[in-house]
Amino acid sequence: MTVTAAAGFVAGATAAGIKPAGRPDLALVATDDARPVPAAAVFTANKMTAAPVVTSRNHLLRTSGHAAAVVLNSGNANAATGRPGLEAAERMCAGTAAALGCDPAEVLVCSTGLIGIPLPIDTVEAGIPALVAGRRAGPDGGLAAADAILTTDTARKLAVAPGDGFVVGGMAKGAAMLAPNMATMLAVLTTDAVATPRQLKDALVAALPTSFNALSVDGCTSTNDTVVLLASGRAGPVDPAALAAAVAEVCADLAGQMAGDAEGATKVVRLRITGAATPADAERGARRVAESQLVKCSWYGKDPYWGRIASDLGSAGIAFDPDKISVRYGDHLVAAGGVSVDHDAAALAAYMDERHLEVTADLGLGRGEATVLTNDLTHAYVDENMGTS
Amino acid sequence: MTVTAAAGFVAGATAAGIKPAGRPDLALVATDDARPVPAAAVFTANKMTAAPVVTSRNHLLRTSGHAAAVVLNSGNANAATGRPGLEAAERMCAGTAAALGCDPAEVLVCSTGLIGIPLPIDTVEAGIPALVAGRRAGPDGGLAAADAILTTDTARKLAVAPGDGFVVGGMAKGAAMLAPNMATMLAVLTTDAVATPRQLKDALVAALPTSFNALSVDGCTSTNDTVVLLASGRAGPVDPAALAAAVAEVCADLAGQMAGDAEGATKVVRLRITGAATPADAERGARRVAESQLVKCSWYGKDPYWGRIASDLGSAGIAFDPDKISVRYGDHLVAAGGVSVDHDAAALAAYMDERHLEVTADLGLGRGEATVLTNDLTHAYVDENMGTS
Repeated sequence: MTVTAAAGFVAGATAAGIKPAGRPDLALVATDDARPVPAAAVFTANKMTAAPVVTSRNHLLRTSGHAAAVVLNSGNANAATGRPGLEAAERMCAGTAAALGCDPAEVLVCSTGLIGIPLPIDTVEAGIPALVAGRRAGPDGGLAAADAILTTDTARKLAVAPGDGFVVGGMAKGAAMLAPNMATMLAVLTTDAVATPRQLKDALVAALPTSFNALSVDGCTSTNDTVVLLASGRAGPVDPAALAAAVAEVCADLAGQMAGDAEGATKVVRLRITGAATPADAERGARRVAESQLVKCSWYGKDPYWGRIASDLGSAGIAFDPDKISVRYGDHLVAAGGVSVDHDAAALAAYMDERHLEVTADLGLGRGEATVLTNDLTHAYVDENMGTS
Repeated sequence: MTVTAAAGFVAGATAAGIKPAGRPDLALVATDDARPVPAAAVFTANKMTAAPVVTSRNHLLRTSGHAAAVVLNSGNANAATGRPGLEAAERMCAGTAAALGCDPAEVLVCSTGLIGIPLPIDTVEAGIPALVAGRRAGPDGGLAAADAILTTDTARKLAVAPGDGFVVGGMAKGAAMLAPNMATMLAVLTTDAVATPRQLKDALVAALPTSFNALSVDGCTSTNDTVVLLASGRAGPVDPAALAAAVAEVCADLAGQMAGDAEGATKVVRLRITGAATPADAERGARRVAESQLVKCSWYGKDPYWGRIASDLGSAGIAFDPDKISVRYGDHLVAAGGVSVDHDAAALAAYMDERHLEVTADLGLGRGEATVLTNDLTHAYVDENMGTS
């Protein structure tokens, strides 16, 4: 069930001292022979790009899509850290490469934590020998790595998809999806299938819309978002479509776990917009509603206040007819033709009490549809984000 | 200091029973002789347009920009109420016109409150005779009207700007500016200047960017937003530019009062984006930061976490160079050239403790500037918006 489920990979973790109190904060995923294998990654679209993103992107270019290892730290994002930050990211890779016996460009790097604070690179470097020495095959190393990348997450996130003669496994961190434009999302996937870097990239890009990007509230990403996929080839050739399907399954599984572990959330809401004039309208409308503080508060209060949803859609800059919108909470139709309709209030109240909600707004205009996973806005969310300490 | 400061206007209020517990919920502003005068209004851009907006817009078209009265109710937005809602809005105007002795098309109507609930029009109609009978000149009627339009506001909002031989006065309601796309904003302004409907409209439109629209977080408006301006002409001809300046002054004053009375806010933040490549970039960046839940939480926590602001700007879809951004809290420079800079932490902490903050992010790219007024995201905001009851 871990990032070492695929043959040919080892993993491990250590407490280097970036986080206080001896909590694990440095993780490694590597090929078991430290040799580079085909690799691909997708990165944040944020122009405030963190140093590890710049470094990993450069390394993949220099190796034409190959990597022997991914080194990851939590506790500091190494973002908004200028030239010293880039030097620190390179030193993380070089230190890892030296301990593994590979080329520094064959190491990718990910960081997650606070922005704008210099990475304590001496501390990180001092921890790397123990990190590399402790790498191991089997679930134990994978679990340790999955734990070491967590920040505000309350649970480790692991997934595996067994294919026909191959396997895809992965780990992820990310919890603050109430404002995912700020919540760093990291994922490392491995497979033992034979694949080219291009096939891996295609599989990742195809998997995004129904997984990590479905979590996103407004198309933005954090300074550090990274998804990496490595293929050891130990399982032999596979159907590229089957590999892509397994990658999509692991990504969707990990994204679902992130949705269920959002900072301070009491609800996981699958918000569907249907009947939009175009798919783009549906997507824009869904993200507008999903980022509405008032709608999020109403979910926290278990309040089926559909008027807020309608008003958000009316101001989303999409085709909209106030006389055609209908809104459902689960199977409970509360509005049709733009006005409230009779419904079983007691049954609806019981539904709103559930942790997982499905909210559907139909615009009555066409066939455009979109779905986003989102959460409520709670006291705990405010508590968690009032300060950086 | 009220909407009756300008010669030729009367106002009043009553408790019709839309709100519980006998709270005032019906207000009137009218010419003292019930004759129509030049009038103009600006309305919400939300496509989920409320019935009173549709009705008032139609009436102004039918009268070529004249009105004798504005009738306003709180406690129910009469939005998402379909054809019955339009009929109810027309009945509010007709009832008011009958009591005043004018044409129904010479009455404008505004509503604020919950969306999607039928307006209890019989209750409203029953209250209109007392409302009209109680109208009066002088501050007393103006104060009563200003109180009757409040919803979640904690204070009445009044402003007056004395011009050279004329006066502009006004009242407003609106408090939920943390999510102004949902927070109905109503304002009624009067003047005794002589002006054409066109001059009044131009004055309103010119006043918006530096007043009510500077409050808006993403350019959206609620289903009901309305600003009305009536001109009695009693003061005689005036310089149109002087009139526009006075209208802008009243609008800015009212908007500032709204900023200071946001639902559950502990901070009023003037957020400035400077050095943007274009004014449009500055505007887009400012609104992105102002609507960031994480940034709003950090202000509540008095936390000068500039990295969140930089990351928001990096994902705002504007020209951005991570090595050029600088951020100030008041006069305290915390980041320059994209990295943290030394500053007096104790003095900054004292500044962050203040209620009014000025936060400036300079993009270092050009001369584009924009300012928005916004607030923090607090426990009290969540409390206030958890339910509709």
